[in-house]
Amino acid sequence: KGFEFHLLDDTYLLQIDFRGQFRASFPHSNFPSSEDDFSDEEIFLGISRARIKMGGYVIKPYYKFYLEQDVRGGNLLDFRAEIEKLSYLKLRVGQWKARYSRERVISSGQQTGLERSLINRVFTIDRQQGISLYGNLDGGGAANFNYWVEVLAGSGRGAGLGDDEKLMYMVRTQWNPNGEDLGFSGSDLEFHEKFVSSVAIAGVTNTSRFTRFSTSGGGQLYGFEPGADGQYKVDQALFETAFKYRGLSFDQEFHYKNIDDKVNLKETTLIGNYFQVGYFFHYLFPKFPKPMEIFARQAFYNPNIDVDNDNNYEYTFGVNWFFKGHRNKLTADYSYLKFNEFNPEGNSEHMFRLQWDISIF
Amino acid sequence: KGFEFHLLDDTYLLQIDFRGQFRASFPHSNFPSSEDDFSDEEIFLGISRARIKMGGYVIKPYYKFYLEQDVRGGNLLDFRAEIEKLSYLKLRVGQWKARYSRERVISSGQQTGLERSLINRVFTIDRQQGISLYGNLDGGGAANFNYWVEVLAGSGRGAGLGDDEKLMYMVRTQWNPNGEDLGFSGSDLEFHEKFVSSVAIAGVTNTSRFTRFSTSGGGQLYGFEPGADGQYKVDQALFETAFKYRGLSFDQEFHYKNIDDKVNLKETTLIGNYFQVGYFFHYLFPKFPKPMEIFARQAFYNPNIDVDNDNNYEYTFGVNWFFKGHRNKLTADYSYLKFNEFNPEGNSEHMFRLQWDISIF
Amino acid sequence: KGFEFHLLDDTYLLQIDFRGQFRASFPHSNFPSSEDDFSDEEIFLGISRARIKMGGYVIKPYYKFYLEQDVRGGNLLDFRAEIEKLSYLKLRVGQWKARYSRERVISSGQQTGLERSLINRVFTIDRQQGISLYGNLDGGGAANFNYWVEVLAGSGRGAGLGDDEKLMYMVRTQWNPNGEDLGFSGSDLEFHEKFVSSVAIAGVTNTSRFTRFSTSGGGQLYGFEPGADGQYKVDQALFETAFKYRGLSFDQEFHYKNIDDKVNLKETTLIGNYFQVGYFFHYLFPKFPKPMEIFARQAFYNPNIDVDNDNNYEYTFGVNWFFKGHRNKLTADYSYLKFNEFNPEGNSEHMFRLQWDISIF
Repeated sequence: KGFEFHLLDDTYLLQIDFRGQFRASFPHSNFPSSEDDFSDEEIFLGISRARIKMGGYVIKPYYKFYLEQDVRGGNLLDFRAEIEKLSYLKLRVGQWKARYSRERVISSGQQTGLERSLINRVFTIDRQQGISLYGNLDGGGAANFNYWVEVLAGSGRGAGLGDDEKLMYMVRTQWNPNGEDLGFSGSDLEFHEKFVSSVAIAGVTNTSRFTRFSTSGGGQLYGFEPGADGQYKVDQALFETAFKYRGLSFDQEFHYKNIDDKVNLKETTLIGNYFQVGYFFHYLFPKFPKPMEIFARQAFYNPNIDVDNDNNYEYTFGVNWFFKGHRNKLTADYSYLKFNEFNPEGNSEHMFRLQWDISIF
Repeated sequence: KGFEFHLLDDTYLLQIDFRGQFRASFPHSNFPSSEDDFSDEEIFLGISRARIKMGGYVIKPYYKFYLEQDVRGGNLLDFRAEIEKLSYLKLRVGQWKARYSRERVISSGQQTGLERSLINRVFTIDRQQGISLYGNLDGGGAANFNYWVEVLAGSGRGAGLGDDEKLMYMVRTQWNPNGEDLGFSGSDLEFHEKFVSSVAIAGVTNTSRFTRFSTSGGGQLYGFEPGADGQYKVDQALFETAFKYRGLSFDQEFHYKNIDDKVNLKETTLIGNYFQVGYFFHYLFPKFPKPMEIFARQAFYNPNIDVDNDNNYEYTFGVNWFFKGHRNKLTADYSYLKFNEFNPEGNSEHMFRLQWDISIF
Repeated sequence: KGFEFHLLDDTYLLQIDFRGQFRASFPHSNFPSSEDDFSDEEIFLGISRARIKMGGYVIKPYYKFYLEQDVRGGNLLDFRAEIEKLSYLKLRVGQWKARYSRERVISSGQQTGLERSLINRVFTIDRQQGISLYGNLDGGGAANFNYWVEVLAGSGRGAGLGDDEKLMYMVRTQWNPNGEDLGFSGSDLEFHEKFVSSVAIAGVTNTSRFTRFSTSGGGQLYGFEPGADGQYKVDQALFETAFKYRGLSFDQEFHYKNIDDKVNLKETTLIGNYFQVGYFFHYLFPKFPKPMEIFARQAFYNPNIDVDNDNNYEYTFGVNWFFKGHRNKLTADYSYLKFNEFNPEGNSEHMFRLQWDISIF
């Protein structure tokens, strides 16, 4: 959580942290998003993320604030204030990663994999500005639920303006069957003696000029033209599972997305899924080094369910070496990509990446 | 003033603060600046301002520095160093809000209103880079004056380059008839038992490519084309009054601006005025909640005194609820706008806004 | 080094500093880079540099980090992590000023001159992202060498992407004949009783779209068109000397640069050199004020050794007044420029600049 300045007899808490991510990759730094990307081979050697984080509380521990800045691109990422007095009813305003899918909500510094999966770019609703109610409803034992209701501008990071009179509405419900919140972090670094899992469903609807969102703000998926006000009505849903148990971690997300193009009067339905498993083999074979985790991921993405032979597949294998948990780790991965979206005859690629992720405090 | 780090036995002072402003508005976030803006109704829900402020002193309390960054847009706002050893002769270099008009100089977090008036966009000279001499001349009693003489680059925020060999020159004289400086903040939160007022005149002259300035830098007023070097010679003057007394605060500014277009050989004279009153009714009717202030504002703007029926009018009514003075407050306002600048037949609008403004320390 | 926060019993060190540079200049702020610049006379009055610096160590003093941000332009300048456990073998990753030439490596706040010389713009490889090994090899006495081996993306500040499969490779060897490292700072503020000098050679090769680099990233020299991937293969070498002795400081760099344009099949060889001397005359004539240093610089640049009469010359004279060493100083300089690069008949210019450079801590 960064270095903590406890000020004026704990009336204020100011946490500060710096995070850097350094990467070498070939022949791409990220997954290709057009056919040209496949033929354009480029070595990457440098900074993939650079962040300053500041947070804390004011007067009371439940009046919280958080600011995260991307100093590499000069972008404000998170800027939010929260009232978390009641566990079952909390309030947040500002800009943050919409609490939609587990993969996106987990910080890039706390993931199991070196980078998010193939389907993240397509289905994430990313950071948005707005207001949210959320909390935990605990009926004892398996009757344990988290919920998030978010009303968002729906124009992506950096934008508070809605699309005409239309906003984005998001709901997520997460069942914690083991009576305990799994939390948003990858890899079973804590070695859960007890099985802890999470099952979630979420849905979101938005009308805007955009068909996808990223840290750069709103943009378009492959095959979609730049939009006019109100052109794209996008409805999305997901089903997500995850657990951690004795060094093993598992994550899965199934996504559905419908894009209703009001200008060209065309509807497109996209689906995708990913599975990811990480395991510390030390717990099975003690001779295996303890800080080493092996992970594997499979993802598929169908950009249009009405078109045959247009699926993209990702197969990734990798290894983490945790010097100090997620705060200082080295990750190497290899991905085999098989895409039919851009060319029915198929594009394929082998990608290699090496990454060091370090948080100062 | 933010959280204070007193370093090395008070040899250094470092103050730090964060400020966030969250707004919901409909059908506009700011006043329309063209006829199209009237018909383009948009809901806004998100961050309207996000700021980091750092200041303090070095070695001696009169060697001061101040830095303010807009983390939302990634802009450096203030960056200045000051020598304030003598009350009657102080020196400042760097970039800051030119000490021209009271409405603009008052921080957006310390205003009475939710946002500045209709005329601010037209008449402000905003932030500039340069050098300034200023001070207070106190002859006892009513013989109390503040003055500011500023030599500025005149190209707006972020630019130190003059226009060819031409700079901006600004002078402001403020009379403090009650022998006390009113200070640059809105609303009588301190409950002045004694009447404290301020009467100021100021003038500024500049030759540049621009007809107006804002946080984005130089720009053009409605009806003016992008300028060439030296195209626009702009002369401005203002007459300003303000007071605070027993929960009542009053602000008024009358502005005059002459734009001499050296390319099209055309002169335009613009005038404008605003009145604003805020009152804590608790002091009249004790049953009224103490943290609640009611305010009203009227502004008019004539974009060309030689043209009939082209005036714009603003009527704003609002309410503040001060949780912790200007450092944590909720504001709601309603504006009725009646514009004839863009269309002689008139455009009118009702605007609603709700805002939370919070400083961390 | 800024203000130091020693945290958790010296487990962590966090240093923070702010630096501002304020300048007035006429008729140019920097040396002209095209013939039009000569005729476009502009007054500059404002901020020339504004920086925030944060660095320190983590857990052990040899696990170091450093971040420097240009808050004026919103650019991330330095972002690097280092392991400096062994003096003869150190490791660095991230983004920094490539350790190529002394003039560029010396911070703009620790230079002798008001600004770098004419040849810096042409020959610097500036900031790059990548990885580096470096260290000091000390065989006793004059057998004292520093070395730097850097593998860099070669696309300039802010870019980690190489050019196709090509990276930038840089090597620098510095001989410290007096058994002591001279260090990267200008002016003999320390009054070296003992003569301390440095002799260095360095070379760099890069293939990219660019013919020069600056804080803005990659760009083109005068006469070169925007490049395609792999268009420009640039090979550079330098010979550099420097010393400090009893208030006298001397710096010299000779640069060679060969640009092989693979598209137009054209090779260009550029050379340049600068000499700079600074002296505190107080040590010769005690009546001279102690904080005052006089400096002079001569530089020449030949943009194409195969073309006659195309050399540019800079003659600069200036004076520093050090209030508090490099942390608070006033500098004035005068440059006479004689350029034949843009016009065989010659362009010449007299430039005047005044500058205040201040670091807070």
